[in-house]
Amino acid sequence: MKKRTVAIAALMSAFMAGSAKAQSSVTLFGVTDAALTHASGSLSNTTGLTGGGNADNRIGFKGTEDLGGGLKAGFWLESGFNIANGTGIATNTNNQNSGISSGGGLTFNRRSTVSIGGDWGEVRLGRDYTPQYWNIGMYDPFYQVGVGASQILMSYLPALQGGGSGPAVWASNSVSYIYNMPFNGLTYGGGGFYGQAMYYRGNNPSNLPNSSDGNGYGIRVGFIGANLTVAIAHGQTSYETGNTQQDNIGASYNFGIIKLTSMFEHDRFSSITANGFLVGATAPAGQGIARIAYSRYQYDISHDPSASKLAVGYVYPLSKRTQLYGTYAHVWNTGGNAASIPGSTTGPNEPSNGFQLGMTHSF
Amino acid sequence: MKKRTVAIAALMSAFMAGSAKAQSSVTLFGVTDAALTHASGSLSNTTGLTGGGNADNRIGFKGTEDLGGGLKAGFWLESGFNIANGTGIATNTNNQNSGISSGGGLTFNRRSTVSIGGDWGEVRLGRDYTPQYWNIGMYDPFYQVGVGASQILMSYLPALQGGGSGPAVWASNSVSYIYNMPFNGLTYGGGGFYGQAMYYRGNNPSNLPNSSDGNGYGIRVGFIGANLTVAIAHGQTSYETGNTQQDNIGASYNFGIIKLTSMFEHDRFSSITANGFLVGATAPAGQGIARIAYSRYQYDISHDPSASKLAVGYVYPLSKRTQLYGTYAHVWNTGGNAASIPGSTTGPNEPSNGFQLGMTHSF
Amino acid sequence: MKKRTVAIAALMSAFMAGSAKAQSSVTLFGVTDAALTHASGSLSNTTGLTGGGNADNRIGFKGTEDLGGGLKAGFWLESGFNIANGTGIATNTNNQNSGISSGGGLTFNRRSTVSIGGDWGEVRLGRDYTPQYWNIGMYDPFYQVGVGASQILMSYLPALQGGGSGPAVWASNSVSYIYNMPFNGLTYGGGGFYGQAMYYRGNNPSNLPNSSDGNGYGIRVGFIGANLTVAIAHGQTSYETGNTQQDNIGASYNFGIIKLTSMFEHDRFSSITANGFLVGATAPAGQGIARIAYSRYQYDISHDPSASKLAVGYVYPLSKRTQLYGTYAHVWNTGGNAASIPGSTTGPNEPSNGFQLGMTHSF
Repeated sequence: MKKRTVAIAALMSAFMAGSAKAQSSVTLFGVTDAALTHASGSLSNTTGLTGGGNADNRIGFKGTEDLGGGLKAGFWLESGFNIANGTGIATNTNNQNSGISSGGGLTFNRRSTVSIGGDWGEVRLGRDYTPQYWNIGMYDPFYQVGVGASQILMSYLPALQGGGSGPAVWASNSVSYIYNMPFNGLTYGGGGFYGQAMYYRGNNPSNLPNSSDGNGYGIRVGFIGANLTVAIAHGQTSYETGNTQQDNIGASYNFGIIKLTSMFEHDRFSSITANGFLVGATAPAGQGIARIAYSRYQYDISHDPSASKLAVGYVYPLSKRTQLYGTYAHVWNTGGNAASIPGSTTGPNEPSNGFQLGMTHSF
Repeated sequence: MKKRTVAIAALMSAFMAGSAKAQSSVTLFGVTDAALTHASGSLSNTTGLTGGGNADNRIGFKGTEDLGGGLKAGFWLESGFNIANGTGIATNTNNQNSGISSGGGLTFNRRSTVSIGGDWGEVRLGRDYTPQYWNIGMYDPFYQVGVGASQILMSYLPALQGGGSGPAVWASNSVSYIYNMPFNGLTYGGGGFYGQAMYYRGNNPSNLPNSSDGNGYGIRVGFIGANLTVAIAHGQTSYETGNTQQDNIGASYNFGIIKLTSMFEHDRFSSITANGFLVGATAPAGQGIARIAYSRYQYDISHDPSASKLAVGYVYPLSKRTQLYGTYAHVWNTGGNAASIPGSTTGPNEPSNGFQLGMTHSF
Repeated sequence: MKKRTVAIAALMSAFMAGSAKAQSSVTLFGVTDAALTHASGSLSNTTGLTGGGNADNRIGFKGTEDLGGGLKAGFWLESGFNIANGTGIATNTNNQNSGISSGGGLTFNRRSTVSIGGDWGEVRLGRDYTPQYWNIGMYDPFYQVGVGASQILMSYLPALQGGGSGPAVWASNSVSYIYNMPFNGLTYGGGGFYGQAMYYRGNNPSNLPNSSDGNGYGIRVGFIGANLTVAIAHGQTSYETGNTQQDNIGASYNFGIIKLTSMFEHDRFSSITANGFLVGATAPAGQGIARIAYSRYQYDISHDPSASKLAVGYVYPLSKRTQLYGTYAHVWNTGGNAASIPGSTTGPNEPSNGFQLGMTHSF
């Protein structure tokens, strides 16, 4: 009889928002980060306050429920915003350029998922990071944030070619199987092997000429040891303007006094290919952490255009939740390329510089 | 003297956000629901992840304050979103098609109200469900959610004729008097009679040719007994393209081993009328709940076009907060009608099918 | 060793949202306010439900962290919305008219900041009230909210001339130094002298013809005594259509049975000037507070067009968090001016009236 009561209560509570239900365990979390930023290139500069020099601004709601028998349910709703002006960051409904949200309202662009899982792993539904993005983010000492963000994503081939920039980081309409994933997994048993396989769709009607646009998948397998971590990923997405394939591998080794990281990326978009790599390090220095990264991205087309970035930074913790930081980055272009630090523009083969001084406060 | 202090404190606290005040009792609540959905028709199909197969995705903030003397104040801010891609659901500022919000940012589209009430009932101001919607939602075993949603709202006459689709479910700029309403009332004394009268306005300037567009009202009276529930409602809204009138009645009887529900709807838009009805049932089956509904909506115009839907589903609770579910629905069209499961399109007199497998997790 | 652990944890937690961290102390706060509003002028009227007759609707998240050694960190994210229809209020990304957000999604338009401070004051980064706005808001007995809002901001010269209306109240991309500021400061040691200096930028590329558009600053110094308060402010913003300068001073004296307030405003936009003033009073009356204000704003151009407003109101507290209120306002125009209560339009030299009856509930 009890089970039947639960069944009816469940059906009713799904209909009625906020009616009587088991105690809730929602975590409200977020990051606020603002920086004085100067970006310069040969054509234009900006100086001003920008959001997210060390960590992306976000506010989120998440929770898990113990279902008994080793089973868990969970949700995660995370909204990115620009602290400098209060706008929300756009999401993308269909993994194609046509699906980018507009107007500056808050959305759950950074993650919007419901999950069920156990020791056997997690099934996650919704909008989430793609498996093929994680190595780019995790193995960059600057975590792809601020002026120090590695040139690999900044020059990302499919985005430049008009392919959907959306799934470069997140994919909507996705289903993932996740095993033992650190940090953001519903179930995490500690180090060792972990992995994720994701399938996502553009949700196009079948009678469109390009009905598979925005469809794609990614797969990633990693290992976390005492000092060594390594992970390899492959992803693929279909677009009206061409298909993209992405392969990457990243590794880090913690020598105690210094932690070295490195990653390699190979991208294909239609018949064009591009290669990127990063080498970086973080090390305790004084009371804080020094970090340095050199990254390079080169297109295999006429003149082999390439962009290289050297970024150096320092993060000084006032507490576990609050940090001050400074970052400097320099970009070199060759082969007619004109990559620049966001906020500036630069001419072909001209350099670009960025400098950021800011603070991060998490809650 | 104490009262004066309260008065001044009240005036100040209204100006200063978050300054010293009495302890807050805000409830953060929500629903996350995602489903693998296949929708097919004679013209196009989609297969993909969609949000809200069993319950609409939402996140909300609500609270009540005991004012003493049997008086209560309360607020309710509820935002709908699409978990598959993180966008917010549009609201409507003026109960007309011109007032639909855009861009995909989060809004408090599902409810945005402030209330005061007591044993005598509740006065509620803001955006809320219309009285004339409740019977459509409550007496559908699928609660108007997912592929199983009754054909009555899916084929709703005024929406199809270009009348504002907004107040089909919610109305902005509304004032309601509510008495003893179950589930979402500020004061609820238990079963018996309950009711709601709502008046809403399009907030148009008086010198516009159609200054009453978006103005309307609704009234609903219901009864909750031991096993029987019944409710009757009437609503009316003015539009530039014509006026709509809506009458409906719903009833349910719980036989213990099965609960039967039924409703009837009569709609007028300008000189056209339409009729809809639903018969449905829910019953415990194994550990969960089985549900079935047959609904039909017919326009009284040339050839009597109609759409009928049969929906069957099963909801399996993992806890009071978490469910797995599956739903199948089939739509028949006659008289040249071409209604289809959302995500698909079908030709005149052609059928449409939908199938959904998903999970719901409330918090 | 402990410090190093903190450093690494800090770096990691900046990357991983919601990972293990020190306990959070986030305050969720807000105001819900709705009113039946009638606004009339010689050309058009509206009657309807509007949000924010006594206090602006908002929902916010804020928190502070004690960093030890007298140092504090804090964040404040506050979103304005319209309770009558659930839309969010627009923000402005660049302090120019081109940067106004659209679509009605929620944004952190009312404040979006991260701060660090101590006894020496506070450094605040993000979007915030300008120093030059505070005197307009604080010395208006109606706090610039609802039909009673002083005519000074309602007729604000730069906004009418096409200058950015944004920084009339808030500025994005700002850096402030704040000392001992009551109500919203990170650190407040009690009455006496306080002050704020803010610098904000339009974040334009340097190669634009008007690269300084949206750049500006404000400074304000005030004093809070036992019964007397006084504050003076100056601000300046650059726009493509002309530069604005703003000077104002406000004072209040609490006689116990009545509190008198007054302020004076002098604005320049390009070569045009305008002057405004307000005299007002609040006094306990019965269980509540009565308030009255007379304000006038006059442009120094041909015919000296001016608008004057008399507003009277009463706020009745049901608790510290909940109030009922009524406000009546009348606007006179001279010199060909046609200012009106929002929601109505009136002809040159014609009057306008507004009446509001509503409730405010804070949480």
